[in-house]
Amino acid sequence: MPTIVVDVMPKAELLDPQGKAVAGALSRMGIDAFDSVRIGKRFELRVEGEVTDAVLDQARQIAADVLSNSVIEDVVGIEVVE
Amino acid sequence: MPTIVVDVMPKAELLDPQGKAVAGALSRMGIDAFDSVRIGKRFELRVEGEVTDAVLDQARQIAADVLSNSVIEDVVGIEVVE
Repeated sequence: MPTIVVDVMPKAELLDPQGKAVAGALSRMGIDAFDSVRIGKRFELRVEGEVTDAVLDQARQIAADVLSNSVIEDVVGIEVVE
Repeated sequence: MPTIVVDVMPKAELLDPQGKAVAGALSRMGIDAFDSVRIGKRFELRVEGEVTDAVLDQARQIAADVLSNSVIEDVVGIEVVE
């Protein structure tokens, strides 16, 4: 069954305390290759049947209205994965 | 600055109560194009300088050891995004 992946990240200008915590842990582990860490959500919507344009539009709608909070988050990707 | 995206999802055989809750909400909204919803995490690791093989190996190591819990989660993707 095809799957639509929706990626949601916190808005860039917002503080990301979880991301900062992970970044701090990495530097305490002596890993300094990474300047920052940001953490978001990844949704897999499994589709019944084919991914038509109508289904894709519905996924976009859901991504904006249900899967993300537009005040603090951005939908950064919507992708069909077979 | 280049970014390495790490995608982590709950293991397929595990229950995903959050995903079920979203799927339930969608069907109550009359949206039935989606058979199931699963929710995972998306990490953006911003890289200082170039993404060398060594940096990519480090990202794989971190993905397995720090960013995911191998008992209940799988790392399903590691991708360099410019």
